[in-house]
Amino acid sequence: MTETVKIAEYLFTRLRQLGVGSIHGVPGDYNLTLLDYVEPSGIHWVGNCNELNAGYAADGYAKVNGIGALITTFGVGELSAINAIAGAYTERAPLVHIVGTPVRDSQDNRRLIHHTFNDGEYGRFALMAAQVTVPVDLVSVAVSSERLKTPLKVPHGVHVPSHDDAFAQIFDKIHSAKQPAILVDGEIRALNIIQEVSKLVESTKWPTWTTTYAKSLVDESLPNVHGIYQGAFSPQKAQDFWNSCDLILCFGPHYSNTNTYAYTSIPKAAITISFSDTDIKLGADTVFRDLPAKHALKHLLKLDYNKIHNYDPYPSIPSPELVTSSNVDNAAALTQSTLWPLLAKFLQPGDIIFGETGTAGYGCRVMPIPKHARLFTPVTWLSIGYMLPAAQGAALAQRELLAKSKWGAPDQTTARTILLIGDGSFQMTAQELSTIIRENLNVVVFLINNDGYTIERCIHGLKQGYNDIAFWRYLQVPAAFGAKEGTYAKSAKTPGELEAILGDEELVSGKGLRMVEIVLDREDAPAGILTKMIDTQKEIEAKKGKEGVNGTAK
Amino acid sequence: MTETVKIAEYLFTRLRQLGVGSIHGVPGDYNLTLLDYVEPSGIHWVGNCNELNAGYAADGYAKVNGIGALITTFGVGELSAINAIAGAYTERAPLVHIVGTPVRDSQDNRRLIHHTFNDGEYGRFALMAAQVTVPVDLVSVAVSSERLKTPLKVPHGVHVPSHDDAFAQIFDKIHSAKQPAILVDGEIRALNIIQEVSKLVESTKWPTWTTTYAKSLVDESLPNVHGIYQGAFSPQKAQDFWNSCDLILCFGPHYSNTNTYAYTSIPKAAITISFSDTDIKLGADTVFRDLPAKHALKHLLKLDYNKIHNYDPYPSIPSPELVTSSNVDNAAALTQSTLWPLLAKFLQPGDIIFGETGTAGYGCRVMPIPKHARLFTPVTWLSIGYMLPAAQGAALAQRELLAKSKWGAPDQTTARTILLIGDGSFQMTAQELSTIIRENLNVVVFLINNDGYTIERCIHGLKQGYNDIAFWRYLQVPAAFGAKEGTYAKSAKTPGELEAILGDEELVSGKGLRMVEIVLDREDAPAGILTKMIDTQKEIEAKKGKEGVNGTAK
Repeated sequence: MTETVKIAEYLFTRLRQLGVGSIHGVPGDYNLTLLDYVEPSGIHWVGNCNELNAGYAADGYAKVNGIGALITTFGVGELSAINAIAGAYTERAPLVHIVGTPVRDSQDNRRLIHHTFNDGEYGRFALMAAQVTVPVDLVSVAVSSERLKTPLKVPHGVHVPSHDDAFAQIFDKIHSAKQPAILVDGEIRALNIIQEVSKLVESTKWPTWTTTYAKSLVDESLPNVHGIYQGAFSPQKAQDFWNSCDLILCFGPHYSNTNTYAYTSIPKAAITISFSDTDIKLGADTVFRDLPAKHALKHLLKLDYNKIHNYDPYPSIPSPELVTSSNVDNAAALTQSTLWPLLAKFLQPGDIIFGETGTAGYGCRVMPIPKHARLFTPVTWLSIGYMLPAAQGAALAQRELLAKSKWGAPDQTTARTILLIGDGSFQMTAQELSTIIRENLNVVVFLINNDGYTIERCIHGLKQGYNDIAFWRYLQVPAAFGAKEGTYAKSAKTPGELEAILGDEELVSGKGLRMVEIVLDREDAPAGILTKMIDTQKEIEAKKGKEGVNGTAK
Repeated sequence: MTETVKIAEYLFTRLRQLGVGSIHGVPGDYNLTLLDYVEPSGIHWVGNCNELNAGYAADGYAKVNGIGALITTFGVGELSAINAIAGAYTERAPLVHIVGTPVRDSQDNRRLIHHTFNDGEYGRFALMAAQVTVPVDLVSVAVSSERLKTPLKVPHGVHVPSHDDAFAQIFDKIHSAKQPAILVDGEIRALNIIQEVSKLVESTKWPTWTTTYAKSLVDESLPNVHGIYQGAFSPQKAQDFWNSCDLILCFGPHYSNTNTYAYTSIPKAAITISFSDTDIKLGADTVFRDLPAKHALKHLLKLDYNKIHNYDPYPSIPSPELVTSSNVDNAAALTQSTLWPLLAKFLQPGDIIFGETGTAGYGCRVMPIPKHARLFTPVTWLSIGYMLPAAQGAALAQRELLAKSKWGAPDQTTARTILLIGDGSFQMTAQELSTIIRENLNVVVFLINNDGYTIERCIHGLKQGYNDIAFWRYLQVPAAFGAKEGTYAKSAKTPGELEAILGDEELVSGKGLRMVEIVLDREDAPAGILTKMIDTQKEIEAKKGKEGVNGTAK
């Protein structure tokens, strides 16, 4: 007789086998019976405050852990989470979304049940989000448990004869290059080739840049790693070198406007070999299909380093300066330019750092990221509010990996998840602070209070009311959301105050939630592209002032 | 030469003409230039904390005001709001959703821009939500302003000869009925026939029930209005009368499981004449199409009341008892059974009352609703967290209607919006309290703190951890969200404490936000269907306890 388990048991066993230690979500009447099987399977249940937040948290968890899962209820729950699902899809977080649905009797008879559009059409949601769904009446259906013994494996590709020709062409190109360079992009995380690419960067010693998406994925302390290539916004000497390269190896390309400095940092196709999940593109005209990066890297690492270009002497290429905050008036108001150098000194190996969409997501790019630390910045989806729940999910994954000795930082006990977030983003999903508190996660929140959506003021409407937000007392939020008495919550308005806080052992090495409010001017943007934009807005305002409201001179 | 206005001006002028006084939403880089035109058009801008909340708020505004509007940004914003849009669609709130989209140059060239799936496919969102969209580069395109002078009108239907036959058959049925009754359902709000139906109820003096959806839409103090028809859960005498009726006129039917006591309150088709937005159904076999309720009611009100059945003497049909809280131990713990009678006495003519999905949405049904007051209860979409932002939107619409002397309550100065909400729902969208504070709206929040999702405990998992929620200090939330010092925030654990609070003039007639926490037991449900359900769950738990965890007797 075949041994059986219930479908729900099968599902959660498989997820656990794949490395899911915690599932995020919200209970609802169509998923309750399914939820009965989560904790008995050995998976921790994290009940979030709402489904969008749960989706964001599961995404953060997935990006750190390698896989994450989310459970919501039918209709209302899945639609609330759909923005998070879309974000995970866009930025390639491996996330399984399980939706509890009405029993098949209701569906087959097209009953006008709640959480539907009251029209008997049950298929609409599947059309909107083709996700894994488990009807509640299937939860306890018996299936053979035999297959649970077969490990789930993602094949990395099978070598076929045509590959030999592909690699011959690729190696030819690599061997003959006189000025080669490497561009590392963020999809190497999803392609699971971080180690391989790092090895190649170290071994070739070729000049290497990352995109913003990939910042922190290769060791920034290596002498041949030159930070983020910012295209038209890079130092002229970096642009000159880049433009005279005859080969750029690009790994995990993700060429959205926001990740490529408005498309100016994309290398020219003619001199690029580009490695993605399914194809290798060689130059402008050749595509080797069905050659996944994971498989290709295995071969690429067999490179004979004696046959490739050796930079000697190493060319003079500017690296991002280690920002410093010398000559700062400690009693002056904090600014974007004095803030980031101070925060950079706070980072430690093994930290996870989130720089939320907004000025934080730009400002954090100047910080050198320590080895074994990971930085998350805005990539393409840019859904503000995402990073607070994502930090919750990531901190949980970090703790689980630490417990399994899989985190990789040298002194594992000090690892923290650090969230850098603006006030507007914080208001979006603030309640998830209570899940961080409830799960007792080691999260340090730096809240930038600059009185509204400064990132939008950079784009349009510098002084418009729609870029304002409600007044909150941010330091009172943790207590209202259940933080125990004495939870760290302080405010800094000057470099001196911030320096004192950042040196506070309670903040540095404490446990659980710690929160710091940083007060900045609402029209202050980080150096670079945002400063250029807000300066343009200020000019427009000044012109308006002169011309008067109706365009007539005052 | 044709006079022109910019498209954005045209749009907002039309919305204002239709009665939109405020628009809810969140700014984003694809809608900023559009937002410039909101306030200059004379429409108030309400910036909410996030898009889902903004959608809920716009829905609440629309249900009270007759029309509402929402502005979000492309991709992330519209997807965050999509659950609210689906709810408005399901429960027929007239809501216009305007999405700022990338300029056409980006779309035409399929650029990999942020807030897309990074695949150049811009059409996906329109497929997911076929809403009004305005690309940002069209905002200032000039269109003729001539048409703004033509008022927008919804035609109520044109009389055609075939209607004569329809009305002849309908009047025949009405004249010959020996035991007629009326069922009022909630879509009469969307059909704009509340006044007409009320007149018919008053004039015929026929026994009348409402669904839960329609509670408060007809005057509950009339002697022939018998409250909510609860089908199998109604008093036997009410069921007996209902079952022997030979005619039931039903207005605005909305037959979801949650609105019909699991389908048991739907009148038999054979004896029903049913009025909806497009059709009249007469008996089981006849449908008069293209005969909208608004048009039909105009004719129906010409009824000769001498020709219809006159109940004399009026039959003995139970009406919901005016609940009382006599013989209550004022020092005992508050319970669902002592709570609702006390709250009922707090209600005043002109109030708007929200009973959020959960125990509040059931408990509030026993409260007699004063004339000119409006109650909102869970209908079909049941998205928990909806009602806090919806109360914000409704309170704003209420204030605007008061200012235009269109609210209709006798003493207009005392009108309040009262939110009855559980702790789990509150945590979903709590930050919108700050918008209530920022807009200085007259909202009284009764927060039922019963330690988690009690409504789910009634359904499944009475003692399961997934029905627990994070611990919050609810009375500290208003201050954290910016409420001015001295904002009313008190807690009641006993009937005595609650009675004192409810008699407090500061709560009764104060202005702005007032908040009362009501502490109830986590396994306490309102009388009726929920009590039956939780009792079943308690029996299951008791049985489990006896049998032991593995089904073996202890």
